[in-house]
Amino acid sequence: MVMAPRIRRALRALTLALLLVPAPGMASSSHRAWTAQDIVTSPQIGDLEMTPDGKEVAYLLHTADIAANRPRFELHLITLADGRDRVIAQSQFLDRLRRIPGRNAWSVLGDFGAGVQLYEVGHDGARTELVRNPETVLVGSADGADFGLWQMPPLQVGIVFYDWSPDGKRLVYSRLEAESPVPRQLTGDAVRDASARRRWTPQVRVGFFMRTEEGPDVPIFERPSSDRIARYMGGMTVWGPDYLDFGAQASDSPDPAVQRYRWSFSSGKAVALSLDALTTAQADIIGPNGGQLEVSGRGKDRRLVERLGGGRSIDFGSAMMTLSDVRSPGYWRAADGRFAIVAVKLLREAKYALLRLDRDGGSRLIQVPESLTHCSFDAGLSRGVCIREGLAYAPELVKVNPVNGAISLVEAISPAHSRLERFAKERRTWINRFGFESVGFVLFPRGYRAGKRYPAVIVTHGSDADERFAAPDFEWSYPIQLLLDRGYLVLAVNDPYIAQSEQLQAAIESWNSCNGRLVPAEIQRLVWLNAVESYRSLIATLGDQGVIDPKRIGIAGYSAGSQMVNVAVTQTDLFRAASSGDGGYLEPAVWRFQQCSYRAVYGGAPGDPKARDNYAALAPSYRAARSKAAVLQQLAEPRAGAVEFHEALREARVPAQITLYPGETSASDETHFFHIPANRIGALEENLEWFERWLGNGNGAAKEGAAIPPAR
Amino acid sequence: MVMAPRIRRALRALTLALLLVPAPGMASSSHRAWTAQDIVTSPQIGDLEMTPDGKEVAYLLHTADIAANRPRFELHLITLADGRDRVIAQSQFLDRLRRIPGRNAWSVLGDFGAGVQLYEVGHDGARTELVRNPETVLVGSADGADFGLWQMPPLQVGIVFYDWSPDGKRLVYSRLEAESPVPRQLTGDAVRDASARRRWTPQVRVGFFMRTEEGPDVPIFERPSSDRIARYMGGMTVWGPDYLDFGAQASDSPDPAVQRYRWSFSSGKAVALSLDALTTAQADIIGPNGGQLEVSGRGKDRRLVERLGGGRSIDFGSAMMTLSDVRSPGYWRAADGRFAIVAVKLLREAKYALLRLDRDGGSRLIQVPESLTHCSFDAGLSRGVCIREGLAYAPELVKVNPVNGAISLVEAISPAHSRLERFAKERRTWINRFGFESVGFVLFPRGYRAGKRYPAVIVTHGSDADERFAAPDFEWSYPIQLLLDRGYLVLAVNDPYIAQSEQLQAAIESWNSCNGRLVPAEIQRLVWLNAVESYRSLIATLGDQGVIDPKRIGIAGYSAGSQMVNVAVTQTDLFRAASSGDGGYLEPAVWRFQQCSYRAVYGGAPGDPKARDNYAALAPSYRAARSKAAVLQQLAEPRAGAVEFHEALREARVPAQITLYPGETSASDETHFFHIPANRIGALEENLEWFERWLGNGNGAAKEGAAIPPAR
Repeated sequence: MVMAPRIRRALRALTLALLLVPAPGMASSSHRAWTAQDIVTSPQIGDLEMTPDGKEVAYLLHTADIAANRPRFELHLITLADGRDRVIAQSQFLDRLRRIPGRNAWSVLGDFGAGVQLYEVGHDGARTELVRNPETVLVGSADGADFGLWQMPPLQVGIVFYDWSPDGKRLVYSRLEAESPVPRQLTGDAVRDASARRRWTPQVRVGFFMRTEEGPDVPIFERPSSDRIARYMGGMTVWGPDYLDFGAQASDSPDPAVQRYRWSFSSGKAVALSLDALTTAQADIIGPNGGQLEVSGRGKDRRLVERLGGGRSIDFGSAMMTLSDVRSPGYWRAADGRFAIVAVKLLREAKYALLRLDRDGGSRLIQVPESLTHCSFDAGLSRGVCIREGLAYAPELVKVNPVNGAISLVEAISPAHSRLERFAKERRTWINRFGFESVGFVLFPRGYRAGKRYPAVIVTHGSDADERFAAPDFEWSYPIQLLLDRGYLVLAVNDPYIAQSEQLQAAIESWNSCNGRLVPAEIQRLVWLNAVESYRSLIATLGDQGVIDPKRIGIAGYSAGSQMVNVAVTQTDLFRAASSGDGGYLEPAVWRFQQCSYRAVYGGAPGDPKARDNYAALAPSYRAARSKAAVLQQLAEPRAGAVEFHEALREARVPAQITLYPGETSASDETHFFHIPANRIGALEENLEWFERWLGNGNGAAKEGAAIPPAR
Repeated sequence: MVMAPRIRRALRALTLALLLVPAPGMASSSHRAWTAQDIVTSPQIGDLEMTPDGKEVAYLLHTADIAANRPRFELHLITLADGRDRVIAQSQFLDRLRRIPGRNAWSVLGDFGAGVQLYEVGHDGARTELVRNPETVLVGSADGADFGLWQMPPLQVGIVFYDWSPDGKRLVYSRLEAESPVPRQLTGDAVRDASARRRWTPQVRVGFFMRTEEGPDVPIFERPSSDRIARYMGGMTVWGPDYLDFGAQASDSPDPAVQRYRWSFSSGKAVALSLDALTTAQADIIGPNGGQLEVSGRGKDRRLVERLGGGRSIDFGSAMMTLSDVRSPGYWRAADGRFAIVAVKLLREAKYALLRLDRDGGSRLIQVPESLTHCSFDAGLSRGVCIREGLAYAPELVKVNPVNGAISLVEAISPAHSRLERFAKERRTWINRFGFESVGFVLFPRGYRAGKRYPAVIVTHGSDADERFAAPDFEWSYPIQLLLDRGYLVLAVNDPYIAQSEQLQAAIESWNSCNGRLVPAEIQRLVWLNAVESYRSLIATLGDQGVIDPKRIGIAGYSAGSQMVNVAVTQTDLFRAASSGDGGYLEPAVWRFQQCSYRAVYGGAPGDPKARDNYAALAPSYRAARSKAAVLQQLAEPRAGAVEFHEALREARVPAQITLYPGETSASDETHFFHIPANRIGALEENLEWFERWLGNGNGAAKEGAAIPPAR
């Protein structure tokens, strides 16, 4: 479905008109210049909790210990009256900070020498063990380890999840149990998985237990660690008055479904409830009238409603937003039910804010020019705090008045980062020639002068180019601030957002579930080629506006972004340099362990004659000779697909470089999000050098030929 | 180049005429029946050395300690006068047993608790350390280990090679040195290799040193462990009167060439000598006149000659044999030069023997109906010993009279194995429809009755279906003796031997070196399809003769044999069951780290349109749907190519099973030749069950459908 050129031109003109040419006065501030160390130590805020009396705030801070070359976690406590910030606990790993209901203390998972266990931490930093599982299990990217989701070194883990009942009288927690400490014979799918994984994984089970005020802890249910809901989502527990609901992965079907259960406090038994799609199985978000809040509809029809009983609902108006995003979750309801607040992500603004919802359907955004994230409120919903942060705005703790939306500074989370150069930026939305809208940011280099054309680098990773500060899940090892410092524009670009279109939603569903509703060519077009068209539009616009030098454009992305990089350079002539991070999806070698989604994208196995043309149309390694970009690949593991693309680039004599960053030991790997500071710094610098080499001032794209491999 | 049907029929008739129909009276002996344990503990003889006075023989025995689940090595000493056999040393690893020239003692590499070091062992078993490298390096299929060639657990290794000068006054040895104990960043080809390897390998260097009777040990040369000649071939050292010659890998070129050097005793310096092809760089084999022995020519023109000075040579006649095969090496020359003896492999007989060569060109085979291997002679070449062994003949130490060829028994190496059932066998040679000759053995089941048709299993691994006893390099995990016990014929079949044809030699060279002289289709035809034609011919003959049931034929092979299995089942309808061991070569996923040879076989990368038809013609995973055989795959590592084939079989709903056998720990793997007794037994039994299930009496091929995967 290609649009008529006339419509396309009209859309393009409209888009152009909407775009701001950067105003003068956007020159750099006089703050300190960024270093790679600044990026690696940028403060990452985890859980944040205000006390019910609104006097104190505790939060988890994740940063890097460069000298020790490992991550550093701190539990901070701030007295709001005087802004005093104290570190009351420090560990190589902290997670899941919670207030203990009814007590003046916090609970947190942490490793204080006995593996990751559950602790109570008081105001004075006094630490008490709450639950300990002495039979810890190694977790991480290591041989003999259960797979870890964190960007962490291999860790011994006893307890992985816990949750307090609202009255604080009950505690549910889960612990890991390794079934077989030594490697065992594998068959069938387990061999396939081992061929994808690189490291041996023992059989591990996740056991959930209930603690009450009396008696021993009671087992509730147990699942293999391959159950992602039990292992990584805490069983999606929801407390009821006399029961606990929990979920487990219903099957290995490509559409992960959740089988929900209800465990009765009195009987100590569980009964099966509904079977839900994973996407609809989230805990309810409660609105001001006690109903369930949800965004329904698509595109212009997308509205926020509160579902009440009896088919009634309250409509809060159109809503191009998501509720309680995992990057800034939360919802709160005033005790008197006068209003509720929900944390939202505004999709077209690519930022996080709060939305105050009144009983009668009135609503009001509480926002700053950047984002409000990690919010927490007191018991009466009369006072709150958030983190204020942005792409070029270092995080600050701010007070939030939920009544009038007033924001006031408490403290900078990292004064050192607040003193760094704050680059000028401009948010843009534009429509590509397929008719889909994207959101992104133009970040202007230090000393930017209008009228001069700059080299530019696109950084992309799906949907998280947004107003958060040096977020490693977006920035990865791409030295955005260092590029800006060296005179590059950085274009932080998202894929066309799914919420705008039923068609995109269907493509994503068909891709993930291989339901066969869309043919491969259409999935290729709506997912990858669509995003490529967004890059093309933005580059054309910035070129037309005289902002960028179209001969010196680079692109960088990891994981999902690496797919986009690999596709972009093998489908267009737009790029001279590229950096593709730790990904090999879309390459034929990956078919063997991604068959469902490959069936959607390609129609079958690489050797299947029916699928042949689909591979030829998209698989980057099959199209390597088309790349006009020099391609750097940085890996945490020697992924087959990534190496396949690299070797195809070399075969085609495209300048290419591949670097594998190591783990701490010979039996462990760097993680998908790098966690070893030396690797992070090394990868940032390697990227900087790569883009300087191929896009740098006066170098031209082909100045240095050393990376062009000899014909073989 | 396909032969005319008439010629083919003629050849076939000729072949048939040459074949013996098994004679009556070949029924089984009354010996004890084989178990899997018998196969796993079968005695593997390593180095064997007779003393210069001809009174004693020392040898290394490699077997399995089933209770401890690990390999066992013993150093045996036999007094020939009374046949007394004593174990004078025992270790988890022994290698490279040598007489120490001029001394009444042996030297051996062994691990006696300090890693693998060099020891002197006396008659009484007294052990003295000769060279010790305290900075040992882990070697094996483990993380942080240098790659090991042995079927061994991960071992700490200090010394890897040594050699005495003929006068015993000098000792050259090499030691491993790890350069970087922790993983390091990898780039380029090292990433590609890491994607092929599974385990992290540290940077290891091999340092060669010279010890003399005085002064400290002197370094000679040092190479990275990636230099296969330095690392695994002891630098191919050759002693001269006042120098030591050694070689190193000349480059990473696909044709491995050897740069030879000469290290002077007096100057302590090395000068470069010639650059040789690896195949011609073997140490000279000396004939009775002091000239160099070699087999020259091909096919019927193949002759054994001794090259003398001045272009003269002595012709010992036609010679379908190889000299000093690595499986039974050796050559000896009488002190008075009256005659020489060389260990040979007779290619058409598929057995090992000795060839006595007289000065005047006379020659005489010294042989038994089976093989003579591991021979050794006294200083005057008046007495010798060998191991007598065969496919169905347990090894015995025998005396050999080099003058008259008389053979007499000294002792059975493993009396327990000598008491086992000795199956009837018949050697066959036949010509396939491409015109090439193969050699193989028909092994008859216990209680064989002529006139009854039996199910049959081909076992194949290139060239080593020959007269050696339960040789694990041929038999691997295929339970030949258990199949015979259960009423199967076993066909131990070799590829058409290369020596018969210039054309085959050219194909192998073009394949290994990707020299481009043969087109891919011709390489495919001469290498894989050619061997498949040999199977077809043999099966047709045995079917015509009423010996086998053509509906119940299986095939098994590992490594190179796994290629043959995978090709055979995807090119023919001959087989109902197959077992393919630890191989994935020929699959598209392997292209990225086997590009040279893949260029020869396929003409390029899987995504290259020029190569497409070549992949479609041979790649087993592209042809999986053609398999009429249920395919079992057994792996030591989760090899990408193997999994690719398995997944393609499942996709095509061909019954398939894949099993990965584990290493000792989560950070190590089973080795290509399994070394863990429990894995060996498990794999033998899994194969037995697989063939019983799909070929078993009355089962028919499709009786049990459980392994047929559901459509996905």
